[in-house]
Amino acid sequence: MEATSFANVPMAKIGPIRIKGMEVNDDVVVQLATYETTLWPSTNRGAIVSRACNGINAIITDERMTRSIALQAKNATVALNIKEKLHQQRNALQEVTQKTGRFVKLVDLQVQIIGNILFIRFEFTTGDASGHNMVTKASDQLVSWLLANYPQLSYISVSGNYCVDKKVSAVNAIRGRGKKVIAEIVIPRDICIKLLKTTPEKIVELNIKKNYLGSIAAGSLMSANAHFANMLLAFYLATGQDAANIVEGSQGIVTAELQEDNLYFSITAPNIIVGTVGNGKHLAFAKENLELMGCTNQAEPGINSRRLAIICGAAILCGELSLLAALTNPGELVTSHMFFERNNR
Amino acid sequence: MEATSFANVPMAKIGPIRIKGMEVNDDVVVQLATYETTLWPSTNRGAIVSRACNGINAIITDERMTRSIALQAKNATVALNIKEKLHQQRNALQEVTQKTGRFVKLVDLQVQIIGNILFIRFEFTTGDASGHNMVTKASDQLVSWLLANYPQLSYISVSGNYCVDKKVSAVNAIRGRGKKVIAEIVIPRDICIKLLKTTPEKIVELNIKKNYLGSIAAGSLMSANAHFANMLLAFYLATGQDAANIVEGSQGIVTAELQEDNLYFSITAPNIIVGTVGNGKHLAFAKENLELMGCTNQAEPGINSRRLAIICGAAILCGELSLLAALTNPGELVTSHMFFERNNR
Amino acid sequence: MEATSFANVPMAKIGPIRIKGMEVNDDVVVQLATYETTLWPSTNRGAIVSRACNGINAIITDERMTRSIALQAKNATVALNIKEKLHQQRNALQEVTQKTGRFVKLVDLQVQIIGNILFIRFEFTTGDASGHNMVTKASDQLVSWLLANYPQLSYISVSGNYCVDKKVSAVNAIRGRGKKVIAEIVIPRDICIKLLKTTPEKIVELNIKKNYLGSIAAGSLMSANAHFANMLLAFYLATGQDAANIVEGSQGIVTAELQEDNLYFSITAPNIIVGTVGNGKHLAFAKENLELMGCTNQAEPGINSRRLAIICGAAILCGELSLLAALTNPGELVTSHMFFERNNR
Amino acid sequence: MEATSFANVPMAKIGPIRIKGMEVNDDVVVQLATYETTLWPSTNRGAIVSRACNGINAIITDERMTRSIALQAKNATVALNIKEKLHQQRNALQEVTQKTGRFVKLVDLQVQIIGNILFIRFEFTTGDASGHNMVTKASDQLVSWLLANYPQLSYISVSGNYCVDKKVSAVNAIRGRGKKVIAEIVIPRDICIKLLKTTPEKIVELNIKKNYLGSIAAGSLMSANAHFANMLLAFYLATGQDAANIVEGSQGIVTAELQEDNLYFSITAPNIIVGTVGNGKHLAFAKENLELMGCTNQAEPGINSRRLAIICGAAILCGELSLLAALTNPGELVTSHMFFERNNR
Repeated sequence: MEATSFANVPMAKIGPIRIKGMEVNDDVVVQLATYETTLWPSTNRGAIVSRACNGINAIITDERMTRSIALQAKNATVALNIKEKLHQQRNALQEVTQKTGRFVKLVDLQVQIIGNILFIRFEFTTGDASGHNMVTKASDQLVSWLLANYPQLSYISVSGNYCVDKKVSAVNAIRGRGKKVIAEIVIPRDICIKLLKTTPEKIVELNIKKNYLGSIAAGSLMSANAHFANMLLAFYLATGQDAANIVEGSQGIVTAELQEDNLYFSITAPNIIVGTVGNGKHLAFAKENLELMGCTNQAEPGINSRRLAIICGAAILCGELSLLAALTNPGELVTSHMFFERNNR
Repeated sequence: MEATSFANVPMAKIGPIRIKGMEVNDDVVVQLATYETTLWPSTNRGAIVSRACNGINAIITDERMTRSIALQAKNATVALNIKEKLHQQRNALQEVTQKTGRFVKLVDLQVQIIGNILFIRFEFTTGDASGHNMVTKASDQLVSWLLANYPQLSYISVSGNYCVDKKVSAVNAIRGRGKKVIAEIVIPRDICIKLLKTTPEKIVELNIKKNYLGSIAAGSLMSANAHFANMLLAFYLATGQDAANIVEGSQGIVTAELQEDNLYFSITAPNIIVGTVGNGKHLAFAKENLELMGCTNQAEPGINSRRLAIICGAAILCGELSLLAALTNPGELVTSHMFFERNNR
Repeated sequence: MEATSFANVPMAKIGPIRIKGMEVNDDVVVQLATYETTLWPSTNRGAIVSRACNGINAIITDERMTRSIALQAKNATVALNIKEKLHQQRNALQEVTQKTGRFVKLVDLQVQIIGNILFIRFEFTTGDASGHNMVTKASDQLVSWLLANYPQLSYISVSGNYCVDKKVSAVNAIRGRGKKVIAEIVIPRDICIKLLKTTPEKIVELNIKKNYLGSIAAGSLMSANAHFANMLLAFYLATGQDAANIVEGSQGIVTAELQEDNLYFSITAPNIIVGTVGNGKHLAFAKENLELMGCTNQAEPGINSRRLAIICGAAILCGELSLLAALTNPGELVTSHMFFERNNR
Repeated sequence: MEATSFANVPMAKIGPIRIKGMEVNDDVVVQLATYETTLWPSTNRGAIVSRACNGINAIITDERMTRSIALQAKNATVALNIKEKLHQQRNALQEVTQKTGRFVKLVDLQVQIIGNILFIRFEFTTGDASGHNMVTKASDQLVSWLLANYPQLSYISVSGNYCVDKKVSAVNAIRGRGKKVIAEIVIPRDICIKLLKTTPEKIVELNIKKNYLGSIAAGSLMSANAHFANMLLAFYLATGQDAANIVEGSQGIVTAELQEDNLYFSITAPNIIVGTVGNGKHLAFAKENLELMGCTNQAEPGINSRRLAIICGAAILCGELSLLAALTNPGELVTSHMFFERNNR
């Protein structure tokens, strides 16, 4: 089957966002593709704030791509014995892994036993690819190797939902999946008032009562933000990513507090899943956008996709900050939506 | 700000999917927009199965769009008193609501008190629109009305994260948000073997061990499926929806069991958020796709979007069924991915 | 089988706790039974604070006991039809219910359909009993009635885990189970400093960073507190309750903020499951403790158990407040534990 | 403050339970303390089954006790740098730890950064103690060491709710807390029918529809069982444990499937928190019960508490199996409750 046409998602440039981190220290223009076009001015407001301040500090604190296979033993004792052996066979598993591709490396594994079933979560690095296919290919070979070496095991699935891909879970944020990005900014009070039309105190309070209390009351899981998913979707679509990964991407946390008299504001996004090569990235617009953001320059595998993740984190911060600011003022959200949509027609 | 270009997401037709329900009884061709192009043949295989069997029964069991405001009282007693009064002021709240738009109606409300804070979850119907903006506009007016009528209350936010929009939660599936769609099919054993290359027993077992056990072990929340998010994203993008709603859309449940000698297979998707009018739907390709699926014909508000949700549910079933079948056979997923991707270049 | 001996759980009186609410307006001495005896001085410190201030305002905002049965239809359409009919047969269901006991009344029901399975959550009031057995008996008869009236249905279970009893879930806090108790107190700054050895600001900050952020990061579900479970267990054991209900009882939320210059502190405990009659309450010490707390006086069914729940909520507040205060000072927790345990030997 | 009286929780012996594992291979009589006395015959029925079959295989697959401290840096970069250094200072941290007690050893640590806040989860072994106090004492000293060595850090709390003690979470099952116990049994069909009055198929089906589907629909988190909490509470009370740990203990998983023609049935309880020394264990009845179960014999620290955890897991299996069997037959639960309660008076 082949594509016979295209869904043309409107795209606009916002920024530049000023990023001042260890790896990225740059003013970066970002493309966002979305049907909800009010996202552009909103996120752009955050970008304006980033330039009026000292920029956004954005870093990666963890990085791995995962796939969990599921196998079954006759009983729990057999399962436990195999678990213990596997932890001593890291070299063999690494060898199997690396035969499946140049860029894939096994960095850790966790074996979770439920009854007599083993969920083996393989954790890899995958160079500049987001790595979905790489880790599936590697896991497929690891399954073969395991079944050959442990005839006591029977096959359940090459993907056992303990990975977890594109589904809500807790394991991803706790054990890691994708790139964990933290972005933070310190906003002087006067800039907050001038550009965001609100005070640091109001943003701090709203974050507590909406993003924490409201989310907890709603039965959220590892999710304490207003709308990470919006920025993620627009960013992923514009750069050719597998945008269904906004599901786990949406599970992130905002913190906001006064630092002296200024507003400290951060977003922690534990599951940013992006690549600069692979499916989608060869499309003309995606390529162009990756170039625009300086994510095609580096030869060493992994650097480009790290840069991309950091920019993504900064964009999330911009959009989150702007919406929270708007919500502190009764009526502002509706008024600005209507204003923008009227002008946009 | 205006769109200056487009993210062109490849789109292909799959199906037709045979749907045999109360509201939709039809063979429907579906467009899916995605960068992960193996989704097409995979979902299409499910569509082939639907035609080889008696079709998919797909129905809507609940429908509402929500927004929760957050307000604060001096203490919990005041909050409780207001909660009790509000339940007797449904007419007044309805009046405020309906003044904000022709299609929006208040159908229920829930007041959740935490300490002295009230999260008031308004539940509306919104005609053929998915309703994000409608319910925000209505809630904005309801906030004004509440602050005017209850001077003991102070404003926190027009959106208090007890809604919940584009975020992981439990409240949406329990109280309802969007359209709850159930799609089910009975697949005779021989068709299962011939078209899905597996047995009913293997699919039943995989669903239990992957979608249930694996998900539970991973700390999932109201999520017991393999990849609802993939089909949702492709369907939402192709029809101009706000695709960030795949976050809550991803939280759904598969059931599979033997019915006599055949395979009973169902998907329950509690939070399908789609519309046939509003942002995105005016784009040429979206319009065309909505027409293709027969979702622009009905004058009575609500019918078109219900049809769309039902088709969406059927498409989810097709894609879920096909992937699960593939996973029951070691190696099949990788082989078929590689085969398809090679041919597709 | 009969009891052949007793586990003797050490019990001590704390308080009195000053409660100033609509229903309870009293100084109440509370018995706590626990092996972790440092709980006594800790909770007692909260009681001292309650008397130094204007007392604790504690109220009940919701009340119901639940049991969800599980039944299965041939397909989802049949399930939906029955769901719709059931909502019009409230009288018949009420009649079946009330035949099973003098004190049990059906107050609401929710039907959750997954595929072709119906989880029917019956919600009852149960007088002064916590109601576990009452609702099981009623549900047992409701199952019989349903199977007789809807031959299309087949039996799965009289308890389908959508109730939910003694298990972690989201449905209990959202739909209600047991008594939802909110207790709150306003603590003047000087009393906070003098009795709790800390400032309002420090408690506010700790609550945000430990009870909210730490819990969210840990993948908690509807749980934002330090140790509700400790007070609940000790209170339940001392009053003859089914203490396994501390599982859902542990899922509650603390709020703390400055009100003018004072500390506003609240606990919201959505699932307090207590009774003054039934299993355990006939034991001599339990009876005595219920009398001590004034929970055996009222003839009208329901009043005694409401009073008990309110006192329970106030006790939770006392213990939670005291621990949080201690944790704000590095070293205090360990020092005070060691001091108390040494003295206690 | 001192105990002035006792809550006398009725206690009865059940069993012996036949356990056939690597560490425990024995018939063990178990004491259960509860106000819900129907738990005795129910759990005893499971014990009878264990003796009629080949016994229960029960093992420990992981063991650690945890405390997470919370500290704050100026920004995320500082936090990340410290995280990286800490992983190279394991020896220093070990030294600090071991100075606080003879039996406490640091076995792992995880640093979770949210914004500029570090949640450092220390994982220890604690000999035969459950270890609550040991790990708090160790963590208290680790906090001091960290604040002295990293002046960039400020104190938030010696317990940051990423531990997690007596609260619902996902981190405990994923990273481990307490002893992870798996208990399993293979029940021949005829014994199942004779002793449990039901078929293997019915138990398998009920487990799927109640423990999996019902729990998922209810928004459960890492919980797929009928009533682990009941057995845990009774076992913990009878052996002097801190029974508030049934909160995390309740989060466990049942699996049931046909193995040839027999029933394979398992329980996985990831968070069994028990000790044979420490608070509560010096009480006469507790001591006696620990002796009765052979948990005071071993000199090498850790062996006694491991034995205790394994027995606890076997008891959970007995109670869970028996209730599920009863629930497969409409009416049985109510009838047997009423029968037993009548006879018991």
